[in-house]
Amino acid sequence: MSDKAARRAKFEQAFEKIRDELIEHVKGEGMPDEAVEWYKNNLDYNVPGGKLNRGMSVVDTAEIIKGSTLTETEYFRAALLGWCIELLQAFFLVADDMMDASITRRGQPCWYRLPKIGMVAINDACMLEGAIYHLLKKHFRKESYYADLLDIFHDTAYKTEFGQLVDLITAPEDHVDLSKFSLERHRLIVIYKTAFYSFYLPVACAMLMSGVPYPEDAPLALSILIPLGEYFQVQDDFLDFSATPEVLGKIGTDIVDNKCSWVVNTALLLTSPAQTANPFNPATTPERLREIRKVLEENYGRKERDAKGVNRAEERVKEVYEELGVRRAYEKYEERVVGVLRERIAAVEDREGGLKKEVFTSFLGKIYKRSK
Amino acid sequence: MSDKAARRAKFEQAFEKIRDELIEHVKGEGMPDEAVEWYKNNLDYNVPGGKLNRGMSVVDTAEIIKGSTLTETEYFRAALLGWCIELLQAFFLVADDMMDASITRRGQPCWYRLPKIGMVAINDACMLEGAIYHLLKKHFRKESYYADLLDIFHDTAYKTEFGQLVDLITAPEDHVDLSKFSLERHRLIVIYKTAFYSFYLPVACAMLMSGVPYPEDAPLALSILIPLGEYFQVQDDFLDFSATPEVLGKIGTDIVDNKCSWVVNTALLLTSPAQTANPFNPATTPERLREIRKVLEENYGRKERDAKGVNRAEERVKEVYEELGVRRAYEKYEERVVGVLRERIAAVEDREGGLKKEVFTSFLGKIYKRSK
Repeated sequence: MSDKAARRAKFEQAFEKIRDELIEHVKGEGMPDEAVEWYKNNLDYNVPGGKLNRGMSVVDTAEIIKGSTLTETEYFRAALLGWCIELLQAFFLVADDMMDASITRRGQPCWYRLPKIGMVAINDACMLEGAIYHLLKKHFRKESYYADLLDIFHDTAYKTEFGQLVDLITAPEDHVDLSKFSLERHRLIVIYKTAFYSFYLPVACAMLMSGVPYPEDAPLALSILIPLGEYFQVQDDFLDFSATPEVLGKIGTDIVDNKCSWVVNTALLLTSPAQTANPFNPATTPERLREIRKVLEENYGRKERDAKGVNRAEERVKEVYEELGVRRAYEKYEERVVGVLRERIAAVEDREGGLKKEVFTSFLGKIYKRSK
Repeated sequence: MSDKAARRAKFEQAFEKIRDELIEHVKGEGMPDEAVEWYKNNLDYNVPGGKLNRGMSVVDTAEIIKGSTLTETEYFRAALLGWCIELLQAFFLVADDMMDASITRRGQPCWYRLPKIGMVAINDACMLEGAIYHLLKKHFRKESYYADLLDIFHDTAYKTEFGQLVDLITAPEDHVDLSKFSLERHRLIVIYKTAFYSFYLPVACAMLMSGVPYPEDAPLALSILIPLGEYFQVQDDFLDFSATPEVLGKIGTDIVDNKCSWVVNTALLLTSPAQTANPFNPATTPERLREIRKVLEENYGRKERDAKGVNRAEERVKEVYEELGVRRAYEKYEERVVGVLRERIAAVEDREGGLKKEVFTSFLGKIYKRSK
């Protein structure tokens, strides 16, 4: 087993224990067997099975801050916080899949689409969130930072819900209106909907349990992790368009689903009425830019397929993305943002038992030039 | 204006302020106008407009514990906790209405049924819950009991979600199986789904903000408020069947909706195979009891209406309820449970600045023999 696979296996073992704790608790509350079984299935179906990057980064960060291997107790506590983040994500994903009318998630049908589940999935999602606070109380109630820990989870969940709201009203699946899109709007959605819970929350959890001065060191962590989270999501959007399904492990659907993606927003900026030249493809004339804009407006978010099952509208959008040089625009974006991040990370002063450059370089290393 | 109307108006004024605080916060976070407007509509449509008993009982209880009128500051803090409970309830109701496929709530269409809302209501419900923790942090972060306050809201929400799960799998709207029903199951659902958040939570909030020893006095409060909450819901179930729409202000739908109601569970107990006589109608023969059981099994939860729009199945169920003497069974239940509650309340030792008999008599007084 590779080191990476072993780390994952160990983290997954912690889930078994945490899941059993949750189940024992509800049994102890006198819930009927059928409800206990339902909750167990909910946990097993929705919580593990993802990439686990968010959860495992609590463990990684705690280890970097400590500067040596965690004891078994320390490991379990870090892993528990990590699984709380995975629970938070599971809560969001179960709910988001219903709101987006998604079909599959992690290669299996979305929870709400299972025949026996349906709308009960709303309550199931809420119970995944509820589990977080049960676990935090059970394992961290006596800590001086308990209230900080709760505040961070609350703030993060609330922010993520705002991000989801802005996303839903900016890009409803069934009503295309590109005039609502912009890179600024994209940035707001991405920071609120993804960056806080995926990047800041794991580090904040590790900081608290490791005794890093909090909230004193929070602004430094935020100043790196929020742009890092934004970069991560821009990559995600770019890979949805550019990666082959074999590499990506799924088929990109952002164009068809009318997603407020970095790619379409970049294409819209490159073809905005004020634009008279295209820095990424100097051959494009102003007339052609106007034509491309029209192609985007007429084809983005269209779901129709022809007799051969081909979505021609989607293909047209992809063609003009290529023509505009979106790949080069992405490369330029990536070099610029990575440059800024490296500068900020270089300025971090390593402190014994505190934040260190490595906390951030380890995140950046996992993301930079990723292909899936 | 009556004293009652004035109290309600004052409590509603506090909501205006709290709503504006929530809106100012999201504006300050840089959310686009459209999202701010959406959130404001969500709050205005779903949070006020109910009976406000739960929220206002925080104020009442705080006043009883104090033994004199609250200062303006004390009033606002008690009202804020009260509105947090109303927010929690709004979160549950928006979500429950989706899971139950309900049509109206408080005399207007359910939020999710508004044309522009739909499934976004899931996120809206979660944001109502999120607002609670934003408000608690803003107004109670410095208090020594802050963590207790958060724990109580978390525990209560988690319990309510379990109650909702058990209710959903016991009585799915579209699949009738009376073998899952029993008074024990009803009791479990009612205690978890209603009693904790409606009765215990308001008193626990008032106890904490008033400096009543917590958790020392919690068991005493629970020992009265949980059975009180159970009694309240049994009444609710009974009124759904027995009250005229003019008095109730709505049309009862428990029979048609396959609800796990106290009434059907009582009828099932009175017609269980072991039952050879009916204490509430001695004229009933064992054969007739078996026939009635069959009527229940064949007609409960049926939605079909005849050409005149009459649901004959529902009418048959109501007829056998009457024949079984469910009204007398309810009267007996009420006298018994009220007797137990009065005994427990009589045993409460009034303490300066602490729990008092009046905290509980005031709840019981609002409920006993209510007609709507």
